[in-house]
Amino acid sequence: MGAATLDRTASTQSPVLEVLAERWSPRAYCDQTPIDEQKLASALEAARWSPSAYNNQPWRFLVARRGTEAHAVIVESMAEFNQQWAPQAGVIIVAIAELENEDGRQFATAHYDLGQAVAHLSVQAHHDGLFVHQMTGFDAAAVQSHFDLPERLQVVSLLAVGDQGDAATLPEPIRERETAPRERRPVADTVLVDA
Amino acid sequence: MGAATLDRTASTQSPVLEVLAERWSPRAYCDQTPIDEQKLASALEAARWSPSAYNNQPWRFLVARRGTEAHAVIVESMAEFNQQWAPQAGVIIVAIAELENEDGRQFATAHYDLGQAVAHLSVQAHHDGLFVHQMTGFDAAAVQSHFDLPERLQVVSLLAVGDQGDAATLPEPIRERETAPRERRPVADTVLVDA
Repeated sequence: MGAATLDRTASTQSPVLEVLAERWSPRAYCDQTPIDEQKLASALEAARWSPSAYNNQPWRFLVARRGTEAHAVIVESMAEFNQQWAPQAGVIIVAIAELENEDGRQFATAHYDLGQAVAHLSVQAHHDGLFVHQMTGFDAAAVQSHFDLPERLQVVSLLAVGDQGDAATLPEPIRERETAPRERRPVADTVLVDA
Repeated sequence: MGAATLDRTASTQSPVLEVLAERWSPRAYCDQTPIDEQKLASALEAARWSPSAYNNQPWRFLVARRGTEAHAVIVESMAEFNQQWAPQAGVIIVAIAELENEDGRQFATAHYDLGQAVAHLSVQAHHDGLFVHQMTGFDAAAVQSHFDLPERLQVVSLLAVGDQGDAATLPEPIRERETAPRERRPVADTVLVDA
């Protein structure tokens, strides 16, 4: 499916787990295969066991499989660039931060905790052969409104999850990004104090 | 070091990677062993390869090993409860969100992206036998001020990272938490729409 010709493994300076070095965010998804339900369940289960401040678990998800009305609504909310590739994935997951609970207690680190849960989800999915690509290029307010979510539940990102497709089928400007080298700032530039 | 008598593996409803099921946040740290520098480097490297919106990598870290002045300053900022256990860990890492870059470009998902980087760090550390416990119970403004961080770099959380210690040495109220069952809401309560 194109993966064999495309080595996306990170050029690490220190050894890391294979699943972390090899995880990346493709845009070529297979639009033929339905999402593997067991793998999806494992990905959501991985998110479940993520840590959070005071174990508040301030995350919620909407799961929309390709072909459903919910999926169509979410695709409609996407930026045009994302509409060219993300709809092909077997499922789109909407990631939601719980800013406060029903009693008005605020969860100050809701976005941070949600990010951790999504990372757990992505790592598990990648281990199982599913690919995850997160997006912020979409109309979050439209999704919020369509699914009638209260203000305390804030739509943050979309996750395309599915089987990898053939990069050669992507339109040219997107295909370029698919094969560009994976780059990160060196650790030394991230650690501001090393005492 | 107490680990053998304390099974903290998650009661999963669907299979997940061993490192995700077994990762948990202890409070009993060994205050004798220095941090293993190679494992620390791998944990930071894992954070490095985390995904982020537009690959902005809006995270920074301060690393303070036990015994340094930076460590003492951070411990001083902690809530009293955390001061009872967290200083024993070999290193405290300050997790920082880059809210905007030096040119004023805002990173809307900085907290979310930082959370993902910290999750990668935690997973790698746990795999290597290091334990990570995150805290929000501390005076972030004091840390921000001491290390002279500009407003665009926001101190979000502290991470105690080190070798596991003996839970029996913890003061009673903390020891209770150490052995309480790990609990999470079922996935079905987290997935608000399953289409």
